[in-house]
Amino acid sequence: MDSSQTDDGRLDVVAVGSALVDVVARVEENVIGRAQLVKSTMELTDLDRSRRIYDLLGPAVESSGGSAANTAAGVAALGGKVGYVGKVAPDGFGAIFAHDLAAMGVELAGSMLVPPTGHLDAVAEEVAGGEMGEDVGTGRCLVLVTPDGERTMATHLGVASTLDVQDIDEALVARAEILYLEGYLWDLAPAKQAMRRAIEVAHGAEAAVALTVSDPFCVGRHRADFLELVEGEIDILFANEEEALMLFGETSLDQVIDAARETGLLVALTRGAAGSVIIGPQGWVEVPAVRVRSVVDTTGAGDLYAAGFLYGLTHGGDPEDAARLGSLCAAEIVSHLGARPEDDLRRLVDR
Amino acid sequence: MDSSQTDDGRLDVVAVGSALVDVVARVEENVIGRAQLVKSTMELTDLDRSRRIYDLLGPAVESSGGSAANTAAGVAALGGKVGYVGKVAPDGFGAIFAHDLAAMGVELAGSMLVPPTGHLDAVAEEVAGGEMGEDVGTGRCLVLVTPDGERTMATHLGVASTLDVQDIDEALVARAEILYLEGYLWDLAPAKQAMRRAIEVAHGAEAAVALTVSDPFCVGRHRADFLELVEGEIDILFANEEEALMLFGETSLDQVIDAARETGLLVALTRGAAGSVIIGPQGWVEVPAVRVRSVVDTTGAGDLYAAGFLYGLTHGGDPEDAARLGSLCAAEIVSHLGARPEDDLRRLVDR
Repeated sequence: MDSSQTDDGRLDVVAVGSALVDVVARVEENVIGRAQLVKSTMELTDLDRSRRIYDLLGPAVESSGGSAANTAAGVAALGGKVGYVGKVAPDGFGAIFAHDLAAMGVELAGSMLVPPTGHLDAVAEEVAGGEMGEDVGTGRCLVLVTPDGERTMATHLGVASTLDVQDIDEALVARAEILYLEGYLWDLAPAKQAMRRAIEVAHGAEAAVALTVSDPFCVGRHRADFLELVEGEIDILFANEEEALMLFGETSLDQVIDAARETGLLVALTRGAAGSVIIGPQGWVEVPAVRVRSVVDTTGAGDLYAAGFLYGLTHGGDPEDAARLGSLCAAEIVSHLGARPEDDLRRLVDR
Repeated sequence: MDSSQTDDGRLDVVAVGSALVDVVARVEENVIGRAQLVKSTMELTDLDRSRRIYDLLGPAVESSGGSAANTAAGVAALGGKVGYVGKVAPDGFGAIFAHDLAAMGVELAGSMLVPPTGHLDAVAEEVAGGEMGEDVGTGRCLVLVTPDGERTMATHLGVASTLDVQDIDEALVARAEILYLEGYLWDLAPAKQAMRRAIEVAHGAEAAVALTVSDPFCVGRHRADFLELVEGEIDILFANEEEALMLFGETSLDQVIDAARETGLLVALTRGAAGSVIIGPQGWVEVPAVRVRSVVDTTGAGDLYAAGFLYGLTHGGDPEDAARLGSLCAAEIVSHLGARPEDDLRRLVDR
């Protein structure tokens, strides 16, 4: 965390997102159907459904996750200065989540460091009255990894669903060069308000604002909101091809590229093994994916692409350079199980 | 869990041990010293010390652990019928631990399935009065993996330290062909009593009793107790070379082999990359280790050796065959991070 205390206290990126612990299990293809999930997507579940799906899984491995938090960890692993705003409960999973980000040098929002006493009591009451793992616990994401390396997710948000304006650490957000927002948060009215406040603070501090639309289902639920943001509130948009087709209401890649150009934003359109297309008002360019010997687990591929892209932009790279770094980071993350970098990503910067 | 319900309800192995969640982090060599730990050993810590060491670690990955539980998981992965007795708290880590064993088909002791309400309230009170992660939480083992693949452990036992006679599911123990006990439990007076009761039940059911002495420090603390067990209570002994030298008070491998022969037990003496020596009243035999291309993490090597050995013995193998299977299982576990098998171990049985 030394680096964040040097020079002017500016941060390259401040990310706002759902704080989740990933529960990762390898499953056979048929488990996706038995869990009534749609392959390669994320579904929000209540606690009961989360438990029923968990019961279908074999032994799992737990690690810190959350889309924007994975991106924050990636920027830190690249050597960037980064902050994170999210909401955890004062339980074991919350401790894991906060520890793992802080240990990478990510600066945490004030409210994540000292859980208010009232909140702690509330948790205790719930535990006394019910069972472990109530809605007031830290959020968790069941990640089902099929033999093809694809990941299908069932997320129980827990306290992450209560993120609100008060959780936005405005002093932290105001230090960002780029504010990075997770589309998943649009599912929740108080979080949506919190995002809008964070955008105001960022604009006030002359920071750029980036949004990832997160998931096709998420685009389906919030298309009007996202289009409104695209038209006046944000500067950088991350979407994969399927999400972009839905967002712009188009049916081909060419049409999406045209629609993206018209927004005037910098758009990073990811296409998995086909690489990415970077679109700006002046034109567009295709950037190939980095070949991976064997895809083990695609969890975090989009998150780490965003990490490389944001690091590149905030370290003097043009968007094409930034996209190349994004591809390198995505390649690292799909070559092992889990959504947080295992390698020292700094060496990727040199390449 | 189907297999345990077939035929006569007999189980190959019932394991009794400390129920722990492993918190595994790769560390540089110098972190061991900064944490004031002794490399390649396990140290018991109170909650404060556990937290201070955790603060020194980088991002970690959490997964179910516990020495005897790893062995139980290994026997199940080999296709054996196995039960487990341990103690978890009604928290997230407890849920992980119970899920991961049950998901492998390990039958859990009754007390692990439905935590008594009184206990649940006790946890809630502690949480309300203090901070998360009190002594009443599920135990955790910080596993520091150095670049050479060696693991150094700091264990905070949490509720595992309160295992007592009431936790011994006698009906489960009585179904075992071999009762397998973790030496670590000898650190705790009520657990020691619980072990003695389990031994009585096993003997009453004509089961064999196996003990692993677990750790050189553990032998140092409980040498007299362990020697008493060796002289009259147990049938099978697992120890590595260092532990056996301490236990028998000898200074060379030859002397240890002689001392082990005199006990009349079946002794499996593990020697890391040098393989193992199997000693019985009639003589002894050396069994080589299985070569591993690259040792990633030695966590669980002894536990999985025991799994292969116990599976071999309970499936018609002679001790030498059993030791070969033990070596194969140990080789699988050291080739990846974590102490639970990743591969389908059944194919090892065929080899």
